[in-house]
Amino acid sequence: MPESTTGERDGRPHVVIVGGGFGGLRTARCLRRAPVRITLVDRNNYHLFQPLLYQVATAALSVGDIAFPIRAALRAQRNVRVLLGDVRGINLDDRRIMLESGELAYDHLVVATGVTHSYFGQDAWAEHAPGLKTIEDAFEIRRRVLLAYEAAERESDPEARREWLTFVVVGAGPTGVELAGALSEIGRRTVAKDFRTIDPTSIRVVLLEGADRVLGTYHEQLSARAQRLLESAGVEVRTGTLASAIDDSGVEVDGERIEARTVLWAAGVEASPLAKALEAPLDGAGRVRVESDLSVPGHPEVFVIGDLASVRSDGKDVPGVAPAAIQMGTYAARRIVDQIEGRTTTPFRYRDKGAMATIGRSAAIVEVGRVRLAGLIAWLVWGVIHLFFLIGVRNRLAVFFGWTWSYITFQRGARLITGKVEGLPEVTDAN
Amino acid sequence: MPESTTGERDGRPHVVIVGGGFGGLRTARCLRRAPVRITLVDRNNYHLFQPLLYQVATAALSVGDIAFPIRAALRAQRNVRVLLGDVRGINLDDRRIMLESGELAYDHLVVATGVTHSYFGQDAWAEHAPGLKTIEDAFEIRRRVLLAYEAAERESDPEARREWLTFVVVGAGPTGVELAGALSEIGRRTVAKDFRTIDPTSIRVVLLEGADRVLGTYHEQLSARAQRLLESAGVEVRTGTLASAIDDSGVEVDGERIEARTVLWAAGVEASPLAKALEAPLDGAGRVRVESDLSVPGHPEVFVIGDLASVRSDGKDVPGVAPAAIQMGTYAARRIVDQIEGRTTTPFRYRDKGAMATIGRSAAIVEVGRVRLAGLIAWLVWGVIHLFFLIGVRNRLAVFFGWTWSYITFQRGARLITGKVEGLPEVTDAN
Repeated sequence: MPESTTGERDGRPHVVIVGGGFGGLRTARCLRRAPVRITLVDRNNYHLFQPLLYQVATAALSVGDIAFPIRAALRAQRNVRVLLGDVRGINLDDRRIMLESGELAYDHLVVATGVTHSYFGQDAWAEHAPGLKTIEDAFEIRRRVLLAYEAAERESDPEARREWLTFVVVGAGPTGVELAGALSEIGRRTVAKDFRTIDPTSIRVVLLEGADRVLGTYHEQLSARAQRLLESAGVEVRTGTLASAIDDSGVEVDGERIEARTVLWAAGVEASPLAKALEAPLDGAGRVRVESDLSVPGHPEVFVIGDLASVRSDGKDVPGVAPAAIQMGTYAARRIVDQIEGRTTTPFRYRDKGAMATIGRSAAIVEVGRVRLAGLIAWLVWGVIHLFFLIGVRNRLAVFFGWTWSYITFQRGARLITGKVEGLPEVTDAN
Repeated sequence: MPESTTGERDGRPHVVIVGGGFGGLRTARCLRRAPVRITLVDRNNYHLFQPLLYQVATAALSVGDIAFPIRAALRAQRNVRVLLGDVRGINLDDRRIMLESGELAYDHLVVATGVTHSYFGQDAWAEHAPGLKTIEDAFEIRRRVLLAYEAAERESDPEARREWLTFVVVGAGPTGVELAGALSEIGRRTVAKDFRTIDPTSIRVVLLEGADRVLGTYHEQLSARAQRLLESAGVEVRTGTLASAIDDSGVEVDGERIEARTVLWAAGVEASPLAKALEAPLDGAGRVRVESDLSVPGHPEVFVIGDLASVRSDGKDVPGVAPAAIQMGTYAARRIVDQIEGRTTTPFRYRDKGAMATIGRSAAIVEVGRVRLAGLIAWLVWGVIHLFFLIGVRNRLAVFFGWTWSYITFQRGARLITGKVEGLPEVTDAN
């Protein structure tokens, strides 16, 4: 290969991967024996196991248990270097990425920066109803939920106390269902003994969903089963209901107002801003419509993978889930090697390995092809699979220990309020 | 007992405890069978095991492993309620404490709010050299230390890289010694394999101490031993050296400048601001000079315990360590019951159970009366005792697991950078 100015050094083409999530990390690993040098850039120094992030938000796990340093994950791989940095732009013509300070040339680029939550244009809702995508989001949700109970304990007015003890989750996809289930469990199990003046039966968890059923991407039978499991866990499920207003003390739905000091957002996602830099067609959520080989139209050397990619396989949209990101990561690596070695590659094809969601203690649903499970067995399957996909033996052991402990003791190990403590009700001698 | 306006309810006197550290928590527990009702107020919802906080700051432990919800610690005790709140003032005449919102009447008050770090009037140093007292402090130190390595990896100029790889700890008391030992271990063990361009032998850890030896409160023989252990762990120890200036790129000592982007402060403490509200004589560090029964002069119903109290026992100042706080907590509880029941109490007497500090892997020093240990055995003693004093079986298991894992693998489990990432060097194709 001739020397070029686009980032080659010692003759090997330079593959730059932006994002160390499921997709980006997989691409790097699959290129371990390829004749390339790799730079993986992420604005965090860790890979985050997002499927368990709701357990950090609900105080069941420590964040260290589900985050793994990207450097450590790639330590043994000599052809990769990891850079901490925030990619702000892409110059497709010059084949360079712009960081917050400095820039880098690439021969092949893999963009895997994922999605963030979307408030459907109601950006003012963000302040009142935090979503769950990052570690900081999880800490903020944990802080609000735990603080609500502390506020209720200080509050002497019964009406005001009820507002502190009402939790609303907007959106009944997997994250919303898992959050609602965990919130209900906190109310029923953890809080009962910790607080002196809170009656656990007065705690309300409301799950709002615009569509006519929860977990709309699953089979109808499982949606119905999930709703029953949620209801028997104490969650009020309201389908076919759209939030029309959210402020700091409640939610408006269908003309009715639910007074609630804690509202969590799990209703929508939008692409990370880097998508716009790719000068490619975007779908409604801002994701990049890629070619069948996951490359950006007109730029065969640039790939978009994971949640950021909008692509169809077997006539269906590929869902924004971890297994899809991993499969795209594997594919992008193979495609890059094929390009270097002048081979063609068959189009990307998504193999649906199934989907699953937990609802709470001993309750989950699993859908694999035509096999549909619900309840305890589904919950065990869910647990084993999530442990398997965690990175690192230490994290697996720590999560397994945390789960076992919680299961036996009904306790949540990480009930810490970090960050600002404010807005608590007045203390009086009477309360 | 007659009804009063000072906080009694159902006839029982009201004991208010401010602070849920070692001292405050112990007082509450020792009053479990006393004819009192107790309110414990803390601005955090957790008890923090401060002796291991440096391990959070140096990424060895997760914060959830060394923090325990105060509510859970006192769950079984029916005569106590826990309030999350920030005590801003004390009205000694009316016997009331003022919170950030609202106030509370007391019959007996126990102030156990501890100390914070002091920069000896050089408040501008705080920004450049964070100290270690709170969880937020530990996260900040961890962020700076891990970020320094990330910056060094991005930096192409060798001189600038050296500054990122130089770590200065100011103050060689137990915290300073433990931080320096852990920083050196990170440099030698953890970093070596994680970074591509950092030469572990170029990492410098400098420990500065104004006095003529490290761990000045220990026997001279142990100070000398600790210094040798530190040096063999790779720490440059400089005693008899005072920092005269600290800025964002280094420290000035005795006319010499040490270029270092990371400076940590472990040199001094000062009393929490609440001390001033007690209208009592304070010592040089702002701690309250209490009577021999730990009460505030002129106010037998108000006690100051733990690090915030300045008291002598057997002709010596009682040190600001956890065992002293625990003994004071026990004493204050007994004294309150004696007051209620009209008995006298012998003055507080501190029983010195010894002191210990770790230096790093397999290295610690322990001093118990005339018994002085150093090295591996001291390290094992240190570990067992710290596990024993942790609150909660879960935390003990988690810390034990974390230590065992680190010992076997040389890895640190919590290498996460949270908070702002900024000030990184420019990325170029050359680095």
